[in-house]
Amino acid sequence: MKTTEITIFKRPELKNPIFIEGLPGVGYIGRNVAGYLIDTLKAEKFAELHSFHFPPVAMLDSEKNGKMSALKNEFYFYRAKNRDEQDMIILIGDAQSMDPIGHYEISREVINFIKEFRPKIVMTLGGFATGKLDNKKQTVFGAAVKDKIIKIFEKKGIKFKDTNIGQIIGASGLIVLEAEKNNIDSVCLMGETSGMLLSDPKATESVLEFITKYLNLKIDMSKIEEKVKETGDVIKKIESLQKKLTTQSTPESSSDDEHLGYIG
Amino acid sequence: MKTTEITIFKRPELKNPIFIEGLPGVGYIGRNVAGYLIDTLKAEKFAELHSFHFPPVAMLDSEKNGKMSALKNEFYFYRAKNRDEQDMIILIGDAQSMDPIGHYEISREVINFIKEFRPKIVMTLGGFATGKLDNKKQTVFGAAVKDKIIKIFEKKGIKFKDTNIGQIIGASGLIVLEAEKNNIDSVCLMGETSGMLLSDPKATESVLEFITKYLNLKIDMSKIEEKVKETGDVIKKIESLQKKLTTQSTPESSSDDEHLGYIG
Amino acid sequence: MKTTEITIFKRPELKNPIFIEGLPGVGYIGRNVAGYLIDTLKAEKFAELHSFHFPPVAMLDSEKNGKMSALKNEFYFYRAKNRDEQDMIILIGDAQSMDPIGHYEISREVINFIKEFRPKIVMTLGGFATGKLDNKKQTVFGAAVKDKIIKIFEKKGIKFKDTNIGQIIGASGLIVLEAEKNNIDSVCLMGETSGMLLSDPKATESVLEFITKYLNLKIDMSKIEEKVKETGDVIKKIESLQKKLTTQSTPESSSDDEHLGYIG
Amino acid sequence: MKTTEITIFKRPELKNPIFIEGLPGVGYIGRNVAGYLIDTLKAEKFAELHSFHFPPVAMLDSEKNGKMSALKNEFYFYRAKNRDEQDMIILIGDAQSMDPIGHYEISREVINFIKEFRPKIVMTLGGFATGKLDNKKQTVFGAAVKDKIIKIFEKKGIKFKDTNIGQIIGASGLIVLEAEKNNIDSVCLMGETSGMLLSDPKATESVLEFITKYLNLKIDMSKIEEKVKETGDVIKKIESLQKKLTTQSTPESSSDDEHLGYIG
Repeated sequence: MKTTEITIFKRPELKNPIFIEGLPGVGYIGRNVAGYLIDTLKAEKFAELHSFHFPPVAMLDSEKNGKMSALKNEFYFYRAKNRDEQDMIILIGDAQSMDPIGHYEISREVINFIKEFRPKIVMTLGGFATGKLDNKKQTVFGAAVKDKIIKIFEKKGIKFKDTNIGQIIGASGLIVLEAEKNNIDSVCLMGETSGMLLSDPKATESVLEFITKYLNLKIDMSKIEEKVKETGDVIKKIESLQKKLTTQSTPESSSDDEHLGYIG
Repeated sequence: MKTTEITIFKRPELKNPIFIEGLPGVGYIGRNVAGYLIDTLKAEKFAELHSFHFPPVAMLDSEKNGKMSALKNEFYFYRAKNRDEQDMIILIGDAQSMDPIGHYEISREVINFIKEFRPKIVMTLGGFATGKLDNKKQTVFGAAVKDKIIKIFEKKGIKFKDTNIGQIIGASGLIVLEAEKNNIDSVCLMGETSGMLLSDPKATESVLEFITKYLNLKIDMSKIEEKVKETGDVIKKIESLQKKLTTQSTPESSSDDEHLGYIG
Repeated sequence: MKTTEITIFKRPELKNPIFIEGLPGVGYIGRNVAGYLIDTLKAEKFAELHSFHFPPVAMLDSEKNGKMSALKNEFYFYRAKNRDEQDMIILIGDAQSMDPIGHYEISREVINFIKEFRPKIVMTLGGFATGKLDNKKQTVFGAAVKDKIIKIFEKKGIKFKDTNIGQIIGASGLIVLEAEKNNIDSVCLMGETSGMLLSDPKATESVLEFITKYLNLKIDMSKIEEKVKETGDVIKKIESLQKKLTTQSTPESSSDDEHLGYIG
Repeated sequence: MKTTEITIFKRPELKNPIFIEGLPGVGYIGRNVAGYLIDTLKAEKFAELHSFHFPPVAMLDSEKNGKMSALKNEFYFYRAKNRDEQDMIILIGDAQSMDPIGHYEISREVINFIKEFRPKIVMTLGGFATGKLDNKKQTVFGAAVKDKIIKIFEKKGIKFKDTNIGQIIGASGLIVLEAEKNNIDSVCLMGETSGMLLSDPKATESVLEFITKYLNLKIDMSKIEEKVKETGDVIKKIESLQKKLTTQSTPESSSDDEHLGYIG
């Protein structure tokens, strides 16, 4: 039985697309950036990844109409509108693996899938929590395997040195490593955040600003705060779920408010 | 080595049966409803599911005669007695998976098996604990993937909106998702319960009442309290076992009373 | 990669042997009985089971000569010396699986292996801890799948009813269930123990007495206390190891005395 | 999907090489000895092992240039410079398996790979923490499967008896057992350390001294303290990572200083 599967709805023709990963992580910066790009660019979904390594739950949209959906990672594509822009594939999702082995497995499946599109570069997005509240403009940190890539992104303002970052846990790091194993250029970009906000609009903006400039995208940035707040609700739900699932393993379920109820 | 296996004793001919799942969960509502249906309808067992993902134990019927049995999920069928009724497959069991991956694996095996019977609809049963003791008639909550299904069941009195339910953990949710992936209509029904009762006769009755009406079944409901109490004993045993197994992993065994003894 | 393997040194010709399992468990009663039988009957080793599900350690015989050995389960055989006796296969070992799935996998491999010898009956041995210190002769409790087997062993003095035993965790239970799935008669016998002794000579004697009588063996029982004490040292080492491994997972090692040292 | 893979860059011709394993463990003695040998002998890397059982992280060299790399175990070879020396394969690495099953899997893959080089002997290196600070010269302890090997190394000053070592957890023990299963002579050597130092130069020196004498290597030992201190920084990072990963499983990342930040 295959424990991680990608279902393809459509095979878009893309010219060396930029691949952007925005799965959940600290500050949900990657996820928020990916979400904003998908919304404003009206990117089109073409594939879905499901994994037995995700939390074993069905999500409910109970504030709206009781619709149930599976945890998934979703692949969107965007086709360049003019010669300044570039084709893109954006990966967004509700969940990462619950166990160490699943992180490796999912990262491998993602790269195995997107490498057939011959991506120009793989960019994974995350956050780096400094533990300090700060009001000035937030730095975007970087990490990469190749010196060539470090040089290119350093020139564009990304901070690679003296960052005090020791490791990157989960998809953002492993997808870069897996990409490089397949000779695909790649970089991880991390927005500086205090780590005290569930979802950080300022950090999201810093990363988004870099990405749009790098990709020559013309994007209305005025709705970031609003969008980030919106995503915050979905995120809170998943956040509290993850905590619960890592401390217990008996089958039961939960409402949005941790103390309000359980389903089975 | 296959870690989840279904053993088939008999292949009944059924006409687009209704599939009902009642595995253990909060309030044991699904399990009790399924048990009551099997008993009163005299449904016949035709298959068993065993999994390495169940707790690694043999159950003892030590109050009676020391008989030992494996943890299992059991498939029963019921053939419509008249034109108002419908053929049914009922899944009942002692256990769910102990680990996240097993929940996905077992749900997939269940749907892979029952889909050859071309079920008309998959109905999974569970409980939703509100945390409040309440004496009035209890609501039955619903969740489904398709708007069409939500509309049908809303008209019949199931509550889908404003339920404050965030997620469904385990088989009840994943079986619905797996069914829909195979284009089988499906719905999850959850009885409202305080969550303070190991086994809740009132909530069981609410769900059972809905099911029998939906299925045009004529069933004597007078023995629910008695039956629910009966099941309570088996349940207590499994409940205390699950708790123990998730907090320790060395091989030992236990009596019904958590403090009375251990076997090895 | 096969995670549980049996290496066969020799294929003895045996006539419907009695299979006796004595792996580690509460009170180490099964292991001590199996060890005593192997020693006094001078049973011969013919196969070994190794599993990735055992604790990931090498055992050291450091009091003696620093010899290192793998954790293993060992199969011994004994050929009947006269017409009163019966051929036997005895399984003894240092360890059981560390995780739930491994218990199922190992039990299946054991039965798959021994079923080719067409065993007359499978007898698994364990202990049942009552929590009470008691000086009178200790009861031997039983559990079995078939009524026929329960009747036979009840007549011989084994207690099946009103034992207050709820479940049997690990190999002793799962091997019986796996045997019965293969239509091999089987029974689990459990010596009553306080549960406060690491290794209980009295309970060991009760079970051994029953076994020797059942098998018409003439065995010198005078050395039980001594033997049980001897095994106690090996057991203490494994016991403290199991505890350590279930609470931590970083690679390190330990001396016999938990506080004396670590290796890496 | 293969969960442990060895990538080979080059197939050196070697004459019955000595195989030395120096993966991370208590006191990081094995890793430091292996590192010192590789540096001073200018051994050449020819293969890399990657495993899904390693912690799911990308390591950052953030003090330097933000370079990212995968956790890996690396195979180096050294060709004898004169008739006194011997060909060698040295295994060094950043990580061991996070889970029990992975320890077995990785040890098997290592031996499967190096056995084609027909190694003369497999030597695994580790530390044994006594819990006592001591200023005198530190003992090197040994463990082996064959009496023949114990005798040979006892004559050379390794202590096998009365060591109070009960078990060896992880690669150092399992690689020896796996080697012997393949009829390859092998021994585990452990430097005595207090266990209170993250990295112990004195214990490293004791083991290194033994190894160089055993292998007739002429090596400048004056830089051990310096080198051990250097490795200490890398080690601290991995150490704090391992602790974090075994207590939580949600995806996030960390800086060198545990309290300074998180990435996602």
